[in-house]
Amino acid sequence: MSVNTTGRVFRVTTWGESHGPAIGGVVDGCPPGVPLSTADIQPWLDARRPGTSKHVTQRQESDAVEILSGVFEDDRTGGPITTGTPISLLIRNEDARSKDYAEIRDSYRPGHADWSYDAKYGVRDYRGGGRASARETAVRVAAGAIARKVLGPEVVIRAALVEMGGDPIDRSAWDWEQRTANPFWSPDAAAAARWASLLDEVRKAGSSVGAVIEVVAEGVPAGWGAPVYGKLDADLAGALMSINAVKGVEIGAGFAIARLRGEDAADEMRAGNDRAHPRFLSNHNGGILGGISSGQPVVARLAVKPTSSILIPKRSLNRAGEEIETRTKGRHDPCVGIRAVPVGEAMMACVLADHYLLHRAQTGRAGPA
Amino acid sequence: MSVNTTGRVFRVTTWGESHGPAIGGVVDGCPPGVPLSTADIQPWLDARRPGTSKHVTQRQESDAVEILSGVFEDDRTGGPITTGTPISLLIRNEDARSKDYAEIRDSYRPGHADWSYDAKYGVRDYRGGGRASARETAVRVAAGAIARKVLGPEVVIRAALVEMGGDPIDRSAWDWEQRTANPFWSPDAAAAARWASLLDEVRKAGSSVGAVIEVVAEGVPAGWGAPVYGKLDADLAGALMSINAVKGVEIGAGFAIARLRGEDAADEMRAGNDRAHPRFLSNHNGGILGGISSGQPVVARLAVKPTSSILIPKRSLNRAGEEIETRTKGRHDPCVGIRAVPVGEAMMACVLADHYLLHRAQTGRAGPA
Amino acid sequence: MSVNTTGRVFRVTTWGESHGPAIGGVVDGCPPGVPLSTADIQPWLDARRPGTSKHVTQRQESDAVEILSGVFEDDRTGGPITTGTPISLLIRNEDARSKDYAEIRDSYRPGHADWSYDAKYGVRDYRGGGRASARETAVRVAAGAIARKVLGPEVVIRAALVEMGGDPIDRSAWDWEQRTANPFWSPDAAAAARWASLLDEVRKAGSSVGAVIEVVAEGVPAGWGAPVYGKLDADLAGALMSINAVKGVEIGAGFAIARLRGEDAADEMRAGNDRAHPRFLSNHNGGILGGISSGQPVVARLAVKPTSSILIPKRSLNRAGEEIETRTKGRHDPCVGIRAVPVGEAMMACVLADHYLLHRAQTGRAGPA
Amino acid sequence: MSVNTTGRVFRVTTWGESHGPAIGGVVDGCPPGVPLSTADIQPWLDARRPGTSKHVTQRQESDAVEILSGVFEDDRTGGPITTGTPISLLIRNEDARSKDYAEIRDSYRPGHADWSYDAKYGVRDYRGGGRASARETAVRVAAGAIARKVLGPEVVIRAALVEMGGDPIDRSAWDWEQRTANPFWSPDAAAAARWASLLDEVRKAGSSVGAVIEVVAEGVPAGWGAPVYGKLDADLAGALMSINAVKGVEIGAGFAIARLRGEDAADEMRAGNDRAHPRFLSNHNGGILGGISSGQPVVARLAVKPTSSILIPKRSLNRAGEEIETRTKGRHDPCVGIRAVPVGEAMMACVLADHYLLHRAQTGRAGPA
Repeated sequence: MSVNTTGRVFRVTTWGESHGPAIGGVVDGCPPGVPLSTADIQPWLDARRPGTSKHVTQRQESDAVEILSGVFEDDRTGGPITTGTPISLLIRNEDARSKDYAEIRDSYRPGHADWSYDAKYGVRDYRGGGRASARETAVRVAAGAIARKVLGPEVVIRAALVEMGGDPIDRSAWDWEQRTANPFWSPDAAAAARWASLLDEVRKAGSSVGAVIEVVAEGVPAGWGAPVYGKLDADLAGALMSINAVKGVEIGAGFAIARLRGEDAADEMRAGNDRAHPRFLSNHNGGILGGISSGQPVVARLAVKPTSSILIPKRSLNRAGEEIETRTKGRHDPCVGIRAVPVGEAMMACVLADHYLLHRAQTGRAGPA
Repeated sequence: MSVNTTGRVFRVTTWGESHGPAIGGVVDGCPPGVPLSTADIQPWLDARRPGTSKHVTQRQESDAVEILSGVFEDDRTGGPITTGTPISLLIRNEDARSKDYAEIRDSYRPGHADWSYDAKYGVRDYRGGGRASARETAVRVAAGAIARKVLGPEVVIRAALVEMGGDPIDRSAWDWEQRTANPFWSPDAAAAARWASLLDEVRKAGSSVGAVIEVVAEGVPAGWGAPVYGKLDADLAGALMSINAVKGVEIGAGFAIARLRGEDAADEMRAGNDRAHPRFLSNHNGGILGGISSGQPVVARLAVKPTSSILIPKRSLNRAGEEIETRTKGRHDPCVGIRAVPVGEAMMACVLADHYLLHRAQTGRAGPA
Repeated sequence: MSVNTTGRVFRVTTWGESHGPAIGGVVDGCPPGVPLSTADIQPWLDARRPGTSKHVTQRQESDAVEILSGVFEDDRTGGPITTGTPISLLIRNEDARSKDYAEIRDSYRPGHADWSYDAKYGVRDYRGGGRASARETAVRVAAGAIARKVLGPEVVIRAALVEMGGDPIDRSAWDWEQRTANPFWSPDAAAAARWASLLDEVRKAGSSVGAVIEVVAEGVPAGWGAPVYGKLDADLAGALMSINAVKGVEIGAGFAIARLRGEDAADEMRAGNDRAHPRFLSNHNGGILGGISSGQPVVARLAVKPTSSILIPKRSLNRAGEEIETRTKGRHDPCVGIRAVPVGEAMMACVLADHYLLHRAQTGRAGPA
Repeated sequence: MSVNTTGRVFRVTTWGESHGPAIGGVVDGCPPGVPLSTADIQPWLDARRPGTSKHVTQRQESDAVEILSGVFEDDRTGGPITTGTPISLLIRNEDARSKDYAEIRDSYRPGHADWSYDAKYGVRDYRGGGRASARETAVRVAAGAIARKVLGPEVVIRAALVEMGGDPIDRSAWDWEQRTANPFWSPDAAAAARWASLLDEVRKAGSSVGAVIEVVAEGVPAGWGAPVYGKLDADLAGALMSINAVKGVEIGAGFAIARLRGEDAADEMRAGNDRAHPRFLSNHNGGILGGISSGQPVVARLAVKPTSSILIPKRSLNRAGEEIETRTKGRHDPCVGIRAVPVGEAMMACVLADHYLLHRAQTGRAGPA
């Protein structure tokens, strides 16, 4: 199976390097008849776009997406709809200052993929991290926008930054409205204010901080997923861990559930509106039981490490194996976790769309029996 | 792609329910010429086997594995070696007391897969959890034993329980020798003693506790993995999250890295014995950079929830949608995390063997360039 | 992707060698709720079974299939139904006379897989052809029986032998009833009589003959398949060519269509009972247009070579590379094409079931828009 | 698994419609360090390009390929080499006269994919056949050029037209040099002369003819392939059958082998230069035994039907289900088989490259044991 592809029947393949002519991807397996134009994709890309505040990289990219295939005019509406054939997405690289990277051509930035890529391939496009650049995630966001259209409006996927540099939000202050009112996707206005100060300090120090992101999908019916390897949570874990700089993934209560007693961890059930929609008294399991969605909100969290591209010199090696000190002078994000928020949403959307279609394949239904 | 299969070129497919006649699996893509008999597999199964101490389920299973295909006598040694064709593994179910489960036939145990399976399939083998039973992991352990043989003796994979019921080990007391000297896989003798008391209390209370497992693979050369979706850490996350009751996965420092500054998270490099083997001054990244192994030990952690099968009654529903109280009277593990330790090792072995072969496919090499 | 697996969402993995303890397979992705017991499978296996007439190998195998997982009692009927989890199939090898093969242990039978397996793996289970034995096809037939249940009674799949030893049937005499009235699956009684004489002569000469099989699937709705690589005909070609000894596959008119003019090859359309069911005036395209079913019968043909296991000595090499003469003394089929008829049906069934579920995944429908 | 992707570890995904802005594809799994520029690809595209003689469609396309990712400058030579990351290929559509197709917007051309696409998707890009257009094969040819680079110069893949309109070549006159000396890829000059006259007549009549293509790969070592579903011949059959208008595939003697006796079909072996390279006295099996290459030339044939786009009116239906007469006025190939010759070579190259890497994955070797 392709190492640059994710998904089983709703499949996303991406390609492209940070400083090549373009990045892009192919979405295969999309159902036909889904209204889709660049207007459905662009807003999500704009949310991830660099250069939008002083807190993120100043690289200027319009990130304008082109749809090169897989859509055609609807007989009835005249508007563009998917045809069921592969959807090719293309985003041009515009502000690629490759000279910024000339000095890392022959050196390995600690914590970055420079060394491991060289060890694997013996060659790498060092400019801006090449294939290892977070720029690749723009294509994920575009694919995620298509996945949302497949899922329909009843599945609502939102992510928020819940911790930055070790400073968590106050969960009792959670307000989804807040998260678009600050540059950090924080659902807690007070935390956002603290983080603004923190990032100013971090940026001046030439340093970086990590973050924790929570992704929540509401409206997922019970029944999506599979019992063993193709579990919904296993696929989510793989998809979220595949995002650049992510080092941890939790479902529901995550590591905290390992500290609960069985009687406290159980999500008790009461009768809901109908047999297919029970009411749960808690959601420690994050909406997934035995690899299959329970009908509760699907909740995942991901830990994003501080970017390895910092101005502070660190000990390392060059390609000749000689000991050096290195630092990265290019434009970078003091907290890559911020721009990873829309990416986390996109991966959630892609995994859910895939399992929706898989569930439909096996059962002929969209939801529970 | 199959939902009951894991891996890309070293592929493991499992089948079987807890109370059916047998469980088993097929390992496809194994290289030819690998010495393999049941003696290579059985010790790992014995390590996972139920009924070995009072701290785990008292179900009695010999878990004797049969190899039904894929091996043949070596011309030279006369001993059995793999032939490169699929290896079929079979383990009979012996002590399946199905009547224990008769009363959960029509009820959903909270936190268990009962409800979600019914929602998906409209039918389920309720006996012992059916396909959702941790019994399936015996086959993973058998497959992992084969993966170890593929990896060879230089790759050493060991896991340990590092926290039980919220009580962590003292990492400064870590002693790999200790972990087989106690029934908990604890590398810290003092923690093991505390956990023994804890589990006595938990068992008497009819309750259960969670655990955290750490899996370490030493001897993995730099270069295994892939840049984007088929990342070594993404595949590990998926494989580990697919283990029953796991709700969180970390690589290296995991969630803790999100609280470090960039300069503290960087794993600095110094010259090693040769260019292909640099020396790292820390391992916050858990041996994986940009989805590709760095040559450091690969380190992952998984959070295991307290088993949902407890004697304490909890509110729930039956299949008719009526509100009930339910408790599980069968034989269960007060801490399923204990028996998940060999399973974590097995999944690490399978993922590494798969990426070893994939790396060899793409580069023609076993290790770094 | 597994080399011992076929299918995308309805997936069949097989394992086993001719003279090992057993052969078997795993069917994954089967919809839940399908009534399934061994009684649904055994008749198809009996049709393929060796030793049923003097015209096929005299190896005695009961080919009794066991279902080890994936079925459970239906709440309502009490009868066994599929649960949606993997179905494990097992068939014991009984009459494996391995000593027959001792003398080919170190020699390569020309036209057989002996040499190529050794070249690939450096080791092989030489007994009865090991993994290369046509015995593996018993599992395909069992899987095909499950696929038929998934497809339902409206899809009728039948195959016939249409040529043996260069002697074709008279197509104007085609009578489906006839094919079970003779030991050759011939739809033409007169051809069957001629073939009986032919095979007597061939068997006495220690020789073998080839055959051509036609597989027809009626009741396939329009819309199954895909535009490019996952075409219905491409998947059929791969699946049929994967049957032992098959060297050619045709769809519809096959090679003969290359001799027609465009105006003669076109399958003209007239209005049918409704828009979704047009009437075609011919079926040169074998029910598949652009990789997608048209609603006409799906028609494929496969060419089966004469078995390479013959009593007539042929020049060859031994494993040491020395020139020898070799002949095969075991029990063999003078025309393996006969027993390949149920296998061709089975592969057609598996490919159709897979595309039925894939179509349902992408469109939410079972048939045409 | 993606329906628009072919291959297991060397994977090709294509996208694009005949009259969209562009067509393209992604090649994933390519080894690093392979010298690759557009100059390595363009000659093969030029060989497939329309408008090169009066015997093929007059659509004018420069078919200039762009490489958008996956290559970077070699440290040593400065020239472009593959990096091991996905290679994105893009070819712009230039001379897309969509108005030619306006009248088929609402009608189904018999023998074409119009009806079956509509049945599947309920929507289609009717312009030039959309995704069903042979234009997609340009991307296959580009991918095949990369596959050739992976295989290296020792594997030589060439195809020839061996029959057109029912008129076969004289195989005793086969001369590989001839095939580029005529516009038909004929290895027999006399046949080419006859075909030129035939096509003049066919074109004037507004009709079309079919063809048979033979693809030969020399230099393939013994050992590539797999025993059961992932057989080299099964994958070849699927890949070749996936080419537009192909209705039959043969390996080696193909259907003719079904008319031979076992003793005549056997490819006898004699000692070659060394144990790994036996000498065969014939090649009825087309270089593949038991799904694995034998070291002989790999030989496949494909039957291409006459194009369904003809000027002669045929009975059909429109989208409303009404009976009509239809004919296709656009620019078409009187014999699409001609331009399919480079496509057959490309698919052979892709399948071989894939199995080369798979063999390397499982055995660590490029060739025989």
